Amino acid sequence: MGLSNVYGVPGLGKRGRARVIDGKAIAKAEREAVALAVARLVAAGGHAPALATVLIGDDPASAVYVGSKIKACEEVGLSSVHRHLPADASREQALALIDELNSDPRVSGILCQLPVPAHLDGTELTNRIDPGKDVDGLTVASAGRLALGLPGLRPCTPAGVMAMLEHAEVRPAGRDTMVLGRSNLFGKPMAQMLIAADATATVCHSRTADLAARCREADVLIAAVGRPRMVKGSWIKPGATVIDVGINRGPAGLVGDVDFEEAVAVAGAISPVPGGVGPMTIARLLRNTLQAAQSNVD
Amino acid sequence: MGLSNVYGVPGLGKRGRARVIDGKAIAKAEREAVALAVARLVAAGGHAPALATVLIGDDPASAVYVGSKIKACEEVGLSSVHRHLPADASREQALALIDELNSDPRVSGILCQLPVPAHLDGTELTNRIDPGKDVDGLTVASAGRLALGLPGLRPCTPAGVMAMLEHAEVRPAGRDTMVLGRSNLFGKPMAQMLIAADATATVCHSRTADLAARCREADVLIAAVGRPRMVKGSWIKPGATVIDVGINRGPAGLVGDVDFEEAVAVAGAISPVPGGVGPMTIARLLRNTLQAAQSNVD
Repeated sequence: MGLSNVYGVPGLGKRGRARVIDGKAIAKAEREAVALAVARLVAAGGHAPALATVLIGDDPASAVYVGSKIKACEEVGLSSVHRHLPADASREQALALIDELNSDPRVSGILCQLPVPAHLDGTELTNRIDPGKDVDGLTVASAGRLALGLPGLRPCTPAGVMAMLEHAEVRPAGRDTMVLGRSNLFGKPMAQMLIAADATATVCHSRTADLAARCREADVLIAAVGRPRMVKGSWIKPGATVIDVGINRGPAGLVGDVDFEEAVAVAGAISPVPGGVGPMTIARLLRNTLQAAQSNVD
Repeated sequence: MGLSNVYGVPGLGKRGRARVIDGKAIAKAEREAVALAVARLVAAGGHAPALATVLIGDDPASAVYVGSKIKACEEVGLSSVHRHLPADASREQALALIDELNSDPRVSGILCQLPVPAHLDGTELTNRIDPGKDVDGLTVASAGRLALGLPGLRPCTPAGVMAMLEHAEVRPAGRDTMVLGRSNLFGKPMAQMLIAADATATVCHSRTADLAARCREADVLIAAVGRPRMVKGSWIKPGATVIDVGINRGPAGLVGDVDFEEAVAVAGAISPVPGGVGPMTIARLLRNTLQAAQSNVD
């Protein structure tokens, strides 16, 4: 039943509501798999892999994100090392901290929470991270390894979307897939992963002519533009799979880039916000930390 | 006139023949610009930048390619350093040679001619090249810089296609662009460059369903699949721009991936084979060597 929807049989989605892809449940399964692997490592006499989180300054949202990542590590038995630098930390201090974590054998993964204070260069700091410990997959080396199809640590959100599609039995091979948005963090790596999975992949963005018509061609539509409810039901091919990567905070709370109530009546399968892609991102961060501990990227 | 064709006005291409994009002439203009810049460097008391070519083994085709690159350097006043290793050269010998060229201040650019003998790893050797001297743009670092939109040395063939589009006044911004083929050498970096130029970019390949219909949607169709004359006139949107990256050697000599005689009656603008993309690739190699000499990528 899922598959027939997934394969975009016209009209199919029109009857009843789309199958909802439960990112929360899939992320839970992923976290449990990581927890099992960590327990095995420890039972075999190894150390629990550690994620190092670097927070510079006092941005409250950043503090919340870092806190939730540390909590998620603890829940699966990963250890964590949190390092906080003051908002006026110098470039040299920040680079020295990352160098220290790069050379610390107990640290398997490092993430530098962005944004950093304006006097620092987030790209420079991120690229100082050892590619073998780049659990956010945002360094030049990780982006290059993805682009060239070499093994490596992949960005968490697009990797999480690939995992969602797999769990939902949505097979992108040979299908028309459309990525709305072209950020370094999501849109561009997402398209690379879809191409690697044998999908026909299109990247659309604010400059695309007749966005709605283009989106209507997609068997798999992935929206990551940061515009609340921009994608309407009329933008969706009946029976298509819709993945909503948008996380927009508004008076109504969290809303995605997709108008869920309209889309659910047309799509064959759809991920909600909240409870869709969001939980997958942290689950992938945990998996990347485990992968970094187990493999040697370079 | 060119522009109206370019913008894909239906039917327009049907009357008469498409405008032919003369890659040979555009490449000549590019080489002259490089020659002028090199002459200025030398007149200002600098050294002529040098391209180092590394050839391992005795593959005749590779020898011809390397020879033509050396000749092209001489024609624009770049110097060249050719290093040849025997077919049985060891991994250590090959890596040591690249290390030597990396640290040689007279060498601005390095290319390792592929394929290398089977006992060597072409990817490993390529990635040993200093990203600042990676004039083929094929290292992990160069691919990552392209993917993340950071300045760097770009792969010569897709960069050459972008230059052709610019010279032909084909503006990809906001247009539907289609890349046929997903190689690391061309298809994937080509799509990245089109996205960076504000185009809507789709990557198609052997697994794409109904390739002909997908191609017919493209305002700019770029074929790089290595199948002689695969793209027929019926695959082309009237008035579209068609760039043929295919270089297939057959009984009839060099033929592209596009059936030129059919396509020229439908397209608005088209690049021929030979005399299209081919000459642009070497022109870009020369420009990259100059850029490597003038800039510091890392």
